[in-house]
Amino acid sequence: MIDEYFNGIIRDVNNVIADYIKGDIKQLYEASYYLFQAGGKRLRPLMLVCSSDLVGGERKRAVLAGASVEVLHTFTLIHDDIMDEDNLRRGMPTVHVKYGIPMAILAGDLLHAKAFQILNDALEGLESTLITKAIRMFTDAILVISEGQALDMQFEDRKSVTENEYLDMITRKTAKLFSTSTGLGALIGKATDEGVKKLEEFGLLLGISFQIVDDILGLTANEEELGKPLYSDIREGKKTILVVKALEIATEDEKKIILQNLGNRGATKEELRQTADLIKKYSLDYAYELADKYYKLAIDRLESIEWKNELAGKALKYIAEFTVKRRK
Amino acid sequence: MIDEYFNGIIRDVNNVIADYIKGDIKQLYEASYYLFQAGGKRLRPLMLVCSSDLVGGERKRAVLAGASVEVLHTFTLIHDDIMDEDNLRRGMPTVHVKYGIPMAILAGDLLHAKAFQILNDALEGLESTLITKAIRMFTDAILVISEGQALDMQFEDRKSVTENEYLDMITRKTAKLFSTSTGLGALIGKATDEGVKKLEEFGLLLGISFQIVDDILGLTANEEELGKPLYSDIREGKKTILVVKALEIATEDEKKIILQNLGNRGATKEELRQTADLIKKYSLDYAYELADKYYKLAIDRLESIEWKNELAGKALKYIAEFTVKRRK
Repeated sequence: MIDEYFNGIIRDVNNVIADYIKGDIKQLYEASYYLFQAGGKRLRPLMLVCSSDLVGGERKRAVLAGASVEVLHTFTLIHDDIMDEDNLRRGMPTVHVKYGIPMAILAGDLLHAKAFQILNDALEGLESTLITKAIRMFTDAILVISEGQALDMQFEDRKSVTENEYLDMITRKTAKLFSTSTGLGALIGKATDEGVKKLEEFGLLLGISFQIVDDILGLTANEEELGKPLYSDIREGKKTILVVKALEIATEDEKKIILQNLGNRGATKEELRQTADLIKKYSLDYAYELADKYYKLAIDRLESIEWKNELAGKALKYIAEFTVKRRK
Repeated sequence: MIDEYFNGIIRDVNNVIADYIKGDIKQLYEASYYLFQAGGKRLRPLMLVCSSDLVGGERKRAVLAGASVEVLHTFTLIHDDIMDEDNLRRGMPTVHVKYGIPMAILAGDLLHAKAFQILNDALEGLESTLITKAIRMFTDAILVISEGQALDMQFEDRKSVTENEYLDMITRKTAKLFSTSTGLGALIGKATDEGVKKLEEFGLLLGISFQIVDDILGLTANEEELGKPLYSDIREGKKTILVVKALEIATEDEKKIILQNLGNRGATKEELRQTADLIKKYSLDYAYELADKYYKLAIDRLESIEWKNELAGKALKYIAEFTVKRRK
């Protein structure tokens, strides 16, 4: 039942994306469309459409808005991979590895504009104040995500980061787009201000939980599950919640080993594995509990909203559960 | 009189830009604001505000929309400089040279979103259909500009390009943002559909003339006027109108010399100068005449519109004249 519901949304969203991402400059549109074909869970459009359904919104608008959020997300992935020098994503060479950095920058820019084009079509015919609000929500998200990515890069050069700084960074980099997805679904579904706010909070809390689980998987999943090289977070010096926590409580000698290999792109596999084991020893339980805490807060928020569509509510619960229990 | 008129617009536009491009992540906002302080003619906002004035639009909206177009233009400059490996712009190190490629990509992305944020504020309170039209015009421009940049890069790897292909490329890469500036000014100034169309055509024709003159200056201006290294177009293998024309009519031996040095990043100063002289011999007169042809067509279009503001009309004429007569 829920599977069918999800598959219907994903099919419609994918059709919109395929419809919009085409044009007469072959290589540019190929590079722009490449990552959509490589897979992806379409979590954000699912959350957007479910949120719209939950408050009784128009499905056609929600599907368009869902596609716009996925296109936006994909633009950030393409540019992030260049900045982080990541070579694999979803088990495939990243866009800049396949098409070169200039074309990858341009493909990201094209998708950034496409996201607005699709959003604009999703909003056509709504009243003026609603359109302005929706576009403000969308642009705010991109600004905040850019700030989050800047913080993420700055943290790579820092020896220590506090848990609060970490939470601020992932709130901007990851959770903001989750809250924008659920909030935008509610907004164009013509929810009350209160409804929009609660669904935004649900998305934000879930997004924090999602990123913590992502950090955990970076040190516990295998290469196939990850779709990228093992321990790339360590190699890039990412200050994940596991690193933040381990550096807080490891012994001085252990800290030294961790800091030696963190951000060392020349570290051997054995050094990386040893470092990962050290980090996990001190942080894995803590990180799981933290992810669970935000997951439960998210569910609370979801249950405080009036559900106009039982299936959509159950689907959002299912998505929330999936984010903390997933293996990839 | 016209000077005062221009200065007032530029001051207001600069204030809006300074107001919007700030935030709590210091390095990101510094990198994003950097190029605005390095100068720039603010041609596009001037054209937008003059077009709005010409049709009797609200000045406050036009200034905001003008700022959004300048912010958009600046985002494309930052990303283009990375793609083209340009190290100097407006006489200063380019953003990626000063802040690194990752921060430059991110600064461009931030400005891209900021452009929409400012535009959205410019449109607030207008009727729904007008907002949708304006955002469609703006997103279309970015898509077309990205296509133009892709063509420009593809042409670098090609031995020959026809004049029509060249005109198609610069129409997308450069002229489209000129026509969007004048068209958007007319649209939010509540011009008739006919008025919007004619002002778009004026901008497009002027933009083509502008790019041809830019190509000419690339081989005739000095380094200080250019604000970038001499003959960088040749070093990067750009298929400017001068190159297109010269390759069409030079002798086989001369063609060989031109093709040897075009796109050769290791060419000596003497080789570059020799190549530039060869190219100019065959193309300079032709290029000037072509620029003049488009300039005159632009003026015709401008004169076919009903002017509600004499000063704004004269100002647009002045801008048009400046684009063909400028030395930088």
